[in-house]
Amino acid sequence: MNILIINGPNLNLLGKREKSVYGENSFESYLEFLRNKYSEHQLVYFQSNIEGELINTLHQYGFGDTDGIVLNAGAYTHTSIAISDAIRAINVPVIEVHISNIHAREAYRHTSMIAAACKGSIAGFGMDSYRLAIEALISNK
Amino acid sequence: MNILIINGPNLNLLGKREKSVYGENSFESYLEFLRNKYSEHQLVYFQSNIEGELINTLHQYGFGDTDGIVLNAGAYTHTSIAISDAIRAINVPVIEVHISNIHAREAYRHTSMIAAACKGSIAGFGMDSYRLAIEALISNK
Amino acid sequence: MNILIINGPNLNLLGKREKSVYGENSFESYLEFLRNKYSEHQLVYFQSNIEGELINTLHQYGFGDTDGIVLNAGAYTHTSIAISDAIRAINVPVIEVHISNIHAREAYRHTSMIAAACKGSIAGFGMDSYRLAIEALISNK
Amino acid sequence: MNILIINGPNLNLLGKREKSVYGENSFESYLEFLRNKYSEHQLVYFQSNIEGELINTLHQYGFGDTDGIVLNAGAYTHTSIAISDAIRAINVPVIEVHISNIHAREAYRHTSMIAAACKGSIAGFGMDSYRLAIEALISNK
Amino acid sequence: MNILIINGPNLNLLGKREKSVYGENSFESYLEFLRNKYSEHQLVYFQSNIEGELINTLHQYGFGDTDGIVLNAGAYTHTSIAISDAIRAINVPVIEVHISNIHAREAYRHTSMIAAACKGSIAGFGMDSYRLAIEALISNK
Amino acid sequence: MNILIINGPNLNLLGKREKSVYGENSFESYLEFLRNKYSEHQLVYFQSNIEGELINTLHQYGFGDTDGIVLNAGAYTHTSIAISDAIRAINVPVIEVHISNIHAREAYRHTSMIAAACKGSIAGFGMDSYRLAIEALISNK
Amino acid sequence: MNILIINGPNLNLLGKREKSVYGENSFESYLEFLRNKYSEHQLVYFQSNIEGELINTLHQYGFGDTDGIVLNAGAYTHTSIAISDAIRAINVPVIEVHISNIHAREAYRHTSMIAAACKGSIAGFGMDSYRLAIEALISNK
Amino acid sequence: MNILIINGPNLNLLGKREKSVYGENSFESYLEFLRNKYSEHQLVYFQSNIEGELINTLHQYGFGDTDGIVLNAGAYTHTSIAISDAIRAINVPVIEVHISNIHAREAYRHTSMIAAACKGSIAGFGMDSYRLAIEALISNK
Amino acid sequence: MNILIINGPNLNLLGKREKSVYGENSFESYLEFLRNKYSEHQLVYFQSNIEGELINTLHQYGFGDTDGIVLNAGAYTHTSIAISDAIRAINVPVIEVHISNIHAREAYRHTSMIAAACKGSIAGFGMDSYRLAIEALISNK
Amino acid sequence: MNILIINGPNLNLLGKREKSVYGENSFESYLEFLRNKYSEHQLVYFQSNIEGELINTLHQYGFGDTDGIVLNAGAYTHTSIAISDAIRAINVPVIEVHISNIHAREAYRHTSMIAAACKGSIAGFGMDSYRLAIEALISNK
Amino acid sequence: MNILIINGPNLNLLGKREKSVYGENSFESYLEFLRNKYSEHQLVYFQSNIEGELINTLHQYGFGDTDGIVLNAGAYTHTSIAISDAIRAINVPVIEVHISNIHAREAYRHTSMIAAACKGSIAGFGMDSYRLAIEALISNK
Amino acid sequence: MNILIINGPNLNLLGKREKSVYGENSFESYLEFLRNKYSEHQLVYFQSNIEGELINTLHQYGFGDTDGIVLNAGAYTHTSIAISDAIRAINVPVIEVHISNIHAREAYRHTSMIAAACKGSIAGFGMDSYRLAIEALISNK
Repeated sequence: MNILIINGPNLNLLGKREKSVYGENSFESYLEFLRNKYSEHQLVYFQSNIEGELINTLHQYGFGDTDGIVLNAGAYTHTSIAISDAIRAINVPVIEVHISNIHAREAYRHTSMIAAACKGSIAGFGMDSYRLAIEALISNK
Repeated sequence: MNILIINGPNLNLLGKREKSVYGENSFESYLEFLRNKYSEHQLVYFQSNIEGELINTLHQYGFGDTDGIVLNAGAYTHTSIAISDAIRAINVPVIEVHISNIHAREAYRHTSMIAAACKGSIAGFGMDSYRLAIEALISNK
Repeated sequence: MNILIINGPNLNLLGKREKSVYGENSFESYLEFLRNKYSEHQLVYFQSNIEGELINTLHQYGFGDTDGIVLNAGAYTHTSIAISDAIRAINVPVIEVHISNIHAREAYRHTSMIAAACKGSIAGFGMDSYRLAIEALISNK
Repeated sequence: MNILIINGPNLNLLGKREKSVYGENSFESYLEFLRNKYSEHQLVYFQSNIEGELINTLHQYGFGDTDGIVLNAGAYTHTSIAISDAIRAINVPVIEVHISNIHAREAYRHTSMIAAACKGSIAGFGMDSYRLAIEALISNK
Repeated sequence: MNILIINGPNLNLLGKREKSVYGENSFESYLEFLRNKYSEHQLVYFQSNIEGELINTLHQYGFGDTDGIVLNAGAYTHTSIAISDAIRAINVPVIEVHISNIHAREAYRHTSMIAAACKGSIAGFGMDSYRLAIEALISNK
Repeated sequence: MNILIINGPNLNLLGKREKSVYGENSFESYLEFLRNKYSEHQLVYFQSNIEGELINTLHQYGFGDTDGIVLNAGAYTHTSIAISDAIRAINVPVIEVHISNIHAREAYRHTSMIAAACKGSIAGFGMDSYRLAIEALISNK
Repeated sequence: MNILIINGPNLNLLGKREKSVYGENSFESYLEFLRNKYSEHQLVYFQSNIEGELINTLHQYGFGDTDGIVLNAGAYTHTSIAISDAIRAINVPVIEVHISNIHAREAYRHTSMIAAACKGSIAGFGMDSYRLAIEALISNK
Repeated sequence: MNILIINGPNLNLLGKREKSVYGENSFESYLEFLRNKYSEHQLVYFQSNIEGELINTLHQYGFGDTDGIVLNAGAYTHTSIAISDAIRAINVPVIEVHISNIHAREAYRHTSMIAAACKGSIAGFGMDSYRLAIEALISNK
Repeated sequence: MNILIINGPNLNLLGKREKSVYGENSFESYLEFLRNKYSEHQLVYFQSNIEGELINTLHQYGFGDTDGIVLNAGAYTHTSIAISDAIRAINVPVIEVHISNIHAREAYRHTSMIAAACKGSIAGFGMDSYRLAIEALISNK
Repeated sequence: MNILIINGPNLNLLGKREKSVYGENSFESYLEFLRNKYSEHQLVYFQSNIEGELINTLHQYGFGDTDGIVLNAGAYTHTSIAISDAIRAINVPVIEVHISNIHAREAYRHTSMIAAACKGSIAGFGMDSYRLAIEALISNK
Repeated sequence: MNILIINGPNLNLLGKREKSVYGENSFESYLEFLRNKYSEHQLVYFQSNIEGELINTLHQYGFGDTDGIVLNAGAYTHTSIAISDAIRAINVPVIEVHISNIHAREAYRHTSMIAAACKGSIAGFGMDSYRLAIEALISNK
Repeated sequence: MNILIINGPNLNLLGKREKSVYGENSFESYLEFLRNKYSEHQLVYFQSNIEGELINTLHQYGFGDTDGIVLNAGAYTHTSIAISDAIRAINVPVIEVHISNIHAREAYRHTSMIAAACKGSIAGFGMDSYRLAIEALISNK
């Protein structure tokens, strides 16, 4: 199975930024762990701080070049109708993930503009949220 | 690992109610599948349509008689501060699950009064949401 | 025709509580009048102050054991998504009734969480609201 | 008993307009049915698309020339304080009716500006809503 | 000075409707009093329950055929952008009057859609509000 | 092609009212220009300040007596559910037009109650908005 | 008749402040005009920028030492529940006046916390608003 | 004097739950202290996590079987119109108490649905809130 | 124990103002009763209608010159962030009291800007609210 | 005439994405049709999913390098103050277009942040919306 | 240059109150530092907890007796339209300062009623906010 | 001291765009003035219209490559949670600046999503806002 993992703004700082909230590891080192665990699947990774590049990547992979997408849209989760439209426009299932429990944080993080367009949502399990999303993609294949 | 699964109002009708939204299987038959799959763990199941009995059950198991709780509070998700207080009061992690993607439904289902009190949330994967929650409990043990 | 009448919280106090608003008769004495008037039909009556027991009763009768339900959910009318879900889940028509004109009272009584799930609504005619609901069930059979 | 039935905007199109919502019969043919059924009573009918003419008619009949009014104010239900004032100003009871269940439609149809001024409300029973209102007027005489 | 007095919906019922709020006299008898008191001025009177006819009258007199307008728009005060536009479109000053103190009544009467378009507002003095408005027109001539 | 142009409240004052906003020409002189330009089509024109007469006209032409309607509902745009219902009830396409850019004016002009019922909207081009609407009707025939 | 005129914050600057809004005359010179015009009545004048001193003055005169009060509470109009309570507590009628049309200004000036407690309101006539209020007091004596 | 103390959801966990907020003692041990202190009065105690059972108990004691009720409705304070109706329906005074200062906590705890139906409210004094409520009942007897 | 009682705006009128709401006694006569009852404590009393003088008094006593403060901020309760800041700034506990049940009155009295800064709140017991607050201070010393 | 057409996010998928909403043709093929039809004018086309690149393009052409701009900002329409500022900053007229009728879709598509900054708006005519915008630019030149 | 510094409610407690938020120094000692640093300018200082006295001081200095005003209105910042009006009424520039970052505190501190009336705002730099405001006055002279 | 100045969308047009609001000079010419004035410090400048590039730049410099950042995020100020997160993630102080007084402009410019994450804010002083921010960084070093 080909799976694309997309990280949005500020997630390039994982392991560097507010460690009490986001943990001590970079996403790259966690990705290595995931690739080992799911060696029978192919995991592609993309990160950008630019909203439009996240849309470009959804377009690029969303018409057959992947079997499922794991998307942590970061702060754009709460404001981007454009990403939501992109998810609706493509043909593969997208799963929304968040490292922290967004409902236990500031009120403006309680609203997700993209959740309604996704297959499902997983939030609050630290890095393990990504693994659970992969499990969900595999089992819903 | 001892895991308690709690289902709230109307979830006793699974397999009987609005099948296009909730699927064709009763929860009991799905529970059998889960028990087979996770035979090394003990899965306890409780369902009630009465808000206060859900609280009673959270109290009963929440001080050591279980290692983790998977909670689908059904419609009480959106209104019950009392269940939210019960989750905060007990000592074991609680994971919020939903069968459907609640963000793709009516606006009053977009708010969760209990999400902030839970460890994390999983929604939208049909019955598989429960399995993913068990996975999350096991891996976060 | 089998008809179930369900009364929610505080309606057991009819004839005892705020008589200027709700009248001087208990529901039981009115029920006797209804049974005489509609002697060719069977009227079953249930009352509870517990939200979940109202749901239990909707489930119990809602898959064929009655031909129609007359529901005065009392104060739960304004807050209960769970009862609304139960009405949507069952197979028989439910008619919402209110003794008083809820739109002429406090603002929080102007919203009905259950109206959208019901076949129709009748409010403001005192005890006669129940009789009109029975008429509606009979004529829409 | 003299009963006035008033229909507001667009209800002249009944049987012609959105038949899946409002049914296939014109109000005139239904009125004939009502007059036959309630031949001992006199039913007067008025329809206008003009808000002020509805008010004029309420004034004309509301000081003794009728014993009760059945009012379907159509879309003015949701916006007209002026009609609400007219109902409050006159001396005969007015019953609000709606053909469809207005709570199961768009949000702006959930608010009734006139409900608080009426004796009671009946909604959702198709044409039968008018008959139930007549029943209510007769039994509350 | 030519002065036009316009009364909106339900004000034809003055002396007949809710006397505790609006007083015991018809507007016609009060108008006679005004005409006697201000015999050197010409007072024209118009009343309609139809919003559009109020607009027609504002148009008819508002380009020179009167020196000032006293307008009690009744319930349309709170909803009519169209009347507000008509006031802005014409060339003579319009004074908003109300018999009762609209701020001491229901919340939906606290908003005036037309106040911003008028020269000034006078409310709460019973019939005397009209006389004060005439005084204001004369003194601001 | 038979095309009906309907103008709502205060638009009879075009060329007379707030010329900086609405321009110097009366609608009648502009209509002459349109009839010359589109001489192969028949343009019917109706204007009223009365909401219900706009509805009457929509009903009269909306079941086959015209091929398309250009509607500038003026201030009723922002408040009239009744006109919106009339548009939904009839069988011919309606195009909403506005002379000025309503989004650059007061906040209460930013909401259109009728836009959702129309085929499309054109606003901000002065009188030319009407011509563009006719173009749209012709090209979408 | 003894009449008390109270001016609130910033009204001591009349004739000095934003002359295009408030005019060129100081209140003192206007008061002289009023005293000449109403020489048979006694006009007492008080001004303060301190909310509590306005309350003190209402208390001091409000139990018999005056026959009526003309109050321009300035900006406290829009925020002061305490002044509103003071008006309700005393025994003489209070008339709210404003020099400018407060509904044609910023949105936060459209709400009056004190209007509901007053006998009536007069706004928008420049200094003449005070005179009209005196007229209203005299005629309602 | 017969006094009924009612505790709502999660208050059975006092001394066990979030001790920094609610203190270290169980309610039972505190009740013993109260009974000693007020030995001339009879204190009855009831606790339930079920909203409807709280209502049942209010009904059972509220028509003469007690002289006053001290009610800590816990989280139902903020959502239950049904309990509020029950308080209004019965004949004995009810005093609302809270252990913590609910206004210094989450925003959804600032609203009390039951306060308006109670005689008075006491909040923020820890367990001592109950004692003050008893004092209030005794002194207002 | 030194206790300061502070009364805010309009409370100098107790016994004089709206007796049905606030009772027939002046605060001074009640204070005498309190001083007799709590003769072992020193009760200091301050009243002002001026918000800033309430703040001055909180400052003057709040750094050691009293052991506790009983504050009825009157209408400033609902609007004054400045008083709330003063309470937070000082070192002695402040208890909010109200004579009437503020939740059973106008909606704008349901919000307290100062409650979150106080130790606790007591409302609805008439003059007895002050005595209960003194009891609370003594018992929490 | 030099005309710039700018398409925002997801509009590169036209003909590929949600065909029932947006139609079956790519924008490129439609552009060819437009260039043939308006061969005497020069049509420049730009598309990007990146908000800032849309701004860059508005800057690049907006000071003389084009005579008018047709802008479909896609989902950024509803959120982008930055694009709105860019439109206001440049010197050439911008016309807002939408393929679908945005008022007949989700509520968050009813608000346009850019409409107030544009010359006018055209929505709901499918691809023909672009042609009408070009017509508007030509006729308003 | 003559510069007036005005401090509002509770700022007399600087160095005494919530030191973690406001720092350890009294304003007087800081003022001495400022006077030394800006010895070529004259710094006048005024503090009051009374809203109306702040207005009095703005009036007293605002017509030529100072060249600029540095205003920290404390909690009145968020509620006082009256101070805002005073700033608009006077002739010298006023700069709003805050010691703490008001946007990082409670939501009710995010709104400034006076910001729109001031020349500019400076917040979050501790005592240095005052110095920066003086710099701004000098450089904008 | 190394200081980074970041300008967001449309600020590349300074000196070209709406000169009455933003002044006549380009930022580049003003930067020269700043570099001369603060020749002992190093000023780095970056501008982009792309939200994600502003984030990239904050990341690039925010972990030690600068001592402080002056950020004018332009229109993204009011919408970007992502930039706010970036400011919170980095290690150097960021100061928010605005050329105009954003509180005296449109309501949607009154909210800053980034203010709470910044050290402090300076607005309304034209270009001088940048200089004051540099002063603040130097003095808070």
